[in-house]
Amino acid sequence: MASEFELIRQHFTRDGRHTDLGVGDDAALFTPTAGMQLVVSTDMLVEGTHFLPDTDPRDLGWKTLAVNVSDIAAMGATPRWSLLALAMPAPDEAWVEGFARGLFECAQAFDIDLVGGDTTRGPRTLCVTIFGEVPAGHAITRGGAAPGDEVWVTGAPGRAALGLAHLQGRLRLTDAGAAECVAALQRPQPRVAAGRALRDVASAMLDVSDGIAGDLGHILERSGVGAEIQVAALPLDALIAFGADDAAARAACLSGGDDYELLFTAPAAQRAAIERIATTQDLAITRIGRIDDTPGLRVVDADGNVGTAGGYDHFS
Amino acid sequence: MASEFELIRQHFTRDGRHTDLGVGDDAALFTPTAGMQLVVSTDMLVEGTHFLPDTDPRDLGWKTLAVNVSDIAAMGATPRWSLLALAMPAPDEAWVEGFARGLFECAQAFDIDLVGGDTTRGPRTLCVTIFGEVPAGHAITRGGAAPGDEVWVTGAPGRAALGLAHLQGRLRLTDAGAAECVAALQRPQPRVAAGRALRDVASAMLDVSDGIAGDLGHILERSGVGAEIQVAALPLDALIAFGADDAAARAACLSGGDDYELLFTAPAAQRAAIERIATTQDLAITRIGRIDDTPGLRVVDADGNVGTAGGYDHFS
Repeated sequence: MASEFELIRQHFTRDGRHTDLGVGDDAALFTPTAGMQLVVSTDMLVEGTHFLPDTDPRDLGWKTLAVNVSDIAAMGATPRWSLLALAMPAPDEAWVEGFARGLFECAQAFDIDLVGGDTTRGPRTLCVTIFGEVPAGHAITRGGAAPGDEVWVTGAPGRAALGLAHLQGRLRLTDAGAAECVAALQRPQPRVAAGRALRDVASAMLDVSDGIAGDLGHILERSGVGAEIQVAALPLDALIAFGADDAAARAACLSGGDDYELLFTAPAAQRAAIERIATTQDLAITRIGRIDDTPGLRVVDADGNVGTAGGYDHFS
Repeated sequence: MASEFELIRQHFTRDGRHTDLGVGDDAALFTPTAGMQLVVSTDMLVEGTHFLPDTDPRDLGWKTLAVNVSDIAAMGATPRWSLLALAMPAPDEAWVEGFARGLFECAQAFDIDLVGGDTTRGPRTLCVTIFGEVPAGHAITRGGAAPGDEVWVTGAPGRAALGLAHLQGRLRLTDAGAAECVAALQRPQPRVAAGRALRDVASAMLDVSDGIAGDLGHILERSGVGAEIQVAALPLDALIAFGADDAAARAACLSGGDDYELLFTAPAAQRAAIERIATTQDLAITRIGRIDDTPGLRVVDADGNVGTAGGYDHFS
């Protein structure tokens, strides 16, 4: 058994660009950059809970690393190193080859070294740990939002939820819309450059994994504030152009998961800076609401009716 | 579901002693010490493969962290931070309470902060990532053994294998022997202080997880050397005093797993330094053989017969 898994492990052994000692010893060694804080996160993905047995292993490899990269991006940090622990019922070289290919495509896209890991027998489970760096004291946490700050989001969140609904036959997108939304679901693009640019601009930030409404709730809780979101301000035009009707677009944007866009707050004085970042990054960044000191999240529709996020959760 | 797992997560949230931002954000933040290399390792433990469903969760919590601590000790490094990802079929608060208790007992014993993690639904699986520090350039890898170096081992490896055999009724130890061997199996004590003391003394080192013979093979492979081990030199006296016969003691020592003692090589000129460390640490450290340039591992018995490790594997 050990030797079969040893062969599998070869697929994950590649030279690192900023690693002192990689796969093959008791532990890996790397040298953090002086003056930087280390930013670390881990995520466990279980077959049947987080992905289906027939998921393309190459897409899964990309996504497994990408969702971790997104956690680092959400701190305004730069991802640098990662570890992969992998359980599978039996050595399956074809699956591993595809998975490793997707994983290293993502690693290369974001200049991340895979420095080590573990391979073992068990129900198919993936655990990635990622390490990033950020200048000490400049990480963007969830806890810095203040009343008067404005709420912004990158890109067009909701695409992944629409892609999933399309694949499951629950709605029908245009061909171009389907291609873009399914790609958003299967090959999410973490917003590393935008996250870094928002350092010293955003007051609080996270990545959207469960929909804007639910994730904004995490900022409100950690910051001890409330917020109001304007439905009319949500970036729904792209979703509607993809073939979603108004209600589906709104629900996908507010409560659809798996997008990995950045949701952040910033003082009003930062509007011009944010617009410059949007231009430089060639990325839509949309102002959708405002932080206040009334606890909870209020979602205000075009007619001025105030609801909560609860009405939009049929995509979760 | 999220809220049940959120409750579970509370069990793992404790203030860190050397952490800037712990559980609850997109990622954790800590500040590596200037001039140190970071030493990282990850291990995945699967129910049914690595532990049985009826394993005491408190012992399992200790051991899950301890085996990772041992990887850091084997580099001559100091463990500092860890992450835990945990899948379980359903929130089981009693199990989690016991597991967290054992995990934090180990964390406290070795002054390690649990800085973050992930909790999800799935077959019971544990993944710990550990971070240590070592003065840059002073880590002890598996690759530094040279012909003429001597081979040493800490403690009395084989206790865990005897403890397991005793629990399974395959052999009968004395009461005192059973207590010590079962404790070695369930509550392994990683050799952090000894590992650190061996920095700049040992030429190559690893921790013994699969028995001396198999693990020494990893040093030989990475160092490109061979070795001869003298059976008569093995620290078997303690095992025999516990009630094991000669053959069982020898097999447990050479091929029994799960001990987490340190196996290392050092130039002969370091003998006195190693003996001083043994005295200071109040820990047996035994010279068991010698590195040479003949590929492979030869195990020489008291009559001068040369065998390989293969003959001693019935404990693996």
